[in-house]
Amino acid sequence: MNFYMPTMVYQEKDAVKKHSEQMAGYGKKALIVTGKHSSKQNGALQDVMDGLEKYNTSYVVFDQIMENPTIDSVREGAALGREEGADFVIGIGGGSPMDAAKAIALIIQNRDSSTEVLYQQISLRHLPVVEVPTTCGTGSEVTPYAILTRDDLQTKQSISHLVFPELALVDGKYLENTPLSVITNTAIDALGHMLESYFHTKATDYSRMLCQYAMEVWGTATGILFGMEAEKEDYDKLMFASSLAGMAISHTGTSLPHGMSYYLTYHKAIPHGKAVGLFLPGYLSVLPEEYEAQVIMALRALGFGSTEQFSGFIREMLGTVELTENEKQAIVGEIAGNQKKMEAAPFAVTEEQLGQMIKEMEK
Amino acid sequence: MNFYMPTMVYQEKDAVKKHSEQMAGYGKKALIVTGKHSSKQNGALQDVMDGLEKYNTSYVVFDQIMENPTIDSVREGAALGREEGADFVIGIGGGSPMDAAKAIALIIQNRDSSTEVLYQQISLRHLPVVEVPTTCGTGSEVTPYAILTRDDLQTKQSISHLVFPELALVDGKYLENTPLSVITNTAIDALGHMLESYFHTKATDYSRMLCQYAMEVWGTATGILFGMEAEKEDYDKLMFASSLAGMAISHTGTSLPHGMSYYLTYHKAIPHGKAVGLFLPGYLSVLPEEYEAQVIMALRALGFGSTEQFSGFIREMLGTVELTENEKQAIVGEIAGNQKKMEAAPFAVTEEQLGQMIKEMEK
Repeated sequence: MNFYMPTMVYQEKDAVKKHSEQMAGYGKKALIVTGKHSSKQNGALQDVMDGLEKYNTSYVVFDQIMENPTIDSVREGAALGREEGADFVIGIGGGSPMDAAKAIALIIQNRDSSTEVLYQQISLRHLPVVEVPTTCGTGSEVTPYAILTRDDLQTKQSISHLVFPELALVDGKYLENTPLSVITNTAIDALGHMLESYFHTKATDYSRMLCQYAMEVWGTATGILFGMEAEKEDYDKLMFASSLAGMAISHTGTSLPHGMSYYLTYHKAIPHGKAVGLFLPGYLSVLPEEYEAQVIMALRALGFGSTEQFSGFIREMLGTVELTENEKQAIVGEIAGNQKKMEAAPFAVTEEQLGQMIKEMEK
Repeated sequence: MNFYMPTMVYQEKDAVKKHSEQMAGYGKKALIVTGKHSSKQNGALQDVMDGLEKYNTSYVVFDQIMENPTIDSVREGAALGREEGADFVIGIGGGSPMDAAKAIALIIQNRDSSTEVLYQQISLRHLPVVEVPTTCGTGSEVTPYAILTRDDLQTKQSISHLVFPELALVDGKYLENTPLSVITNTAIDALGHMLESYFHTKATDYSRMLCQYAMEVWGTATGILFGMEAEKEDYDKLMFASSLAGMAISHTGTSLPHGMSYYLTYHKAIPHGKAVGLFLPGYLSVLPEEYEAQVIMALRALGFGSTEQFSGFIREMLGTVELTENEKQAIVGEIAGNQKKMEAAPFAVTEEQLGQMIKEMEK
């Protein structure tokens, strides 16, 4: 088994402010990669700009990253970064800008290469990356993954290179003004990371430790999702659980629910966390009997008394989704052809079981 | 709170063999730093030499590291490394050679500087370090610390620089032919890391996660210490617990028992693990009442039903030690003057409490 987690993580109130000297020290000019709105509303972009200015590091902002970023948007960001002479990249936001920041850091460093290198199995260097998460789901601040939308394949796929951020600055305060639907969807994405990593072919005692702790932390902070008044501490916990779950999938990767979610997101525009979460009860239901005790323990750590209670929670949070027979077949066909995700499940998965995962989703 | 653990760790059977390409790739010539005997007996030195030879990386062996290495021995190792043009360092053994390897890697890289730089508060680069632990206590393979004997101060002290190994290759098989006394002493050193880090001013949820998991793993593998027949798995678990505890102290450092142990080791030649362990019941006994529930939970995770049972275990494993009044006063005086260790305890420590820790040791 292995452990490798080279990102330096600070989680605390005003993390960006407190560590802006280090953040500003990765280069002379930062390319800030973010979305159009949220990082302006939650204050993260301002915090980063203030921190850079304080230490006289110049920057340019690329705020054109949409949800489920395309290769085109990454190309655009990289072009701006090159033009402006950026020598490091700061991603701010949810998974989309943080993942895009990694891909952009790769492209800028490799001046002669087009974006095609993103999916080539070669070894490439990349500019240093700093990540500032503002949602509680992706864990991208501590993973080497960068998942982009591939229109050529009509799905989403992580680039072939592993880009660990140098620095992750994590602060629960950015969740305070985040819409509940975003908190819910991203918290459930993190939940998917925990469960998929825990029940994964590559799970080790190291990754299970991260998952177990993540589940316990997450389980104490879900009052928010049920509409209870949130305490600042709960936001910190959801952020912390998300980072831990990110560290876990850095070691194992994800499994079938993530693999199957890409279809729903690409073809039916269902947000990532929701698309993943819908498949989670089904994933637990197809795990072989020998995992039963572990499933119960995992659910208990998360605060659920039974698989039924867990399914009820998912339904309550995410609703259901209507799929045609053709769509169902397409999902099964796509995941059955995704060798990496199929092998991620710690048992030989049948097409029947994939069908069952979809059925569970419709319950 | 922060998390930083950049060492790449592989723990598995034949870890050195399986990852020798990576190990051999850190340079053109390795300086192997080890002790006189154990790494020859347990096969670790041969595994490392085989791995380097397989990938045509040359090496030179410095096998003069004694327990509690002196600055002189480090200077000697560095001189050999320079002479031979070594460009990376591999430490094999317990804490002594692994710590020495880090100090040597620092000195070789800084050709103009004498060993005095070891304790200067300046920023220095160092050669890459690979560590192969053969005991189950120090965790040095995943810490940035290098503790040397300082004859000028008549104690032991970590150098001022943080040297994280690039790579740690951990394999329980090296414990199979290790004398039980060494396993016991080092397993109790690891126990000290867990308890001191868990009850530490700098403890965070990250470091507590590492401690908690370490305690649970350690608690299932202590049959060996009681003379029960060991299974290979138990050796792996003790090694794993030791690495986890090392990761924990990488974040917090150690506390009073380690600080007080140095006197016993320097002046009374008591092995490190034993010297630490003797103070552990006393440390738990002086923790303020608010820690009571946590102490009970920690001991339970370790497999102990009560503080009395824990004290009994320490006595059974380590015996007692006779100290004169002068010696007791000297221990209290030394630790009371060690600001860093005094502040490591998560409460204001009185001299009376330090005295009580010694009394507990004599029970």
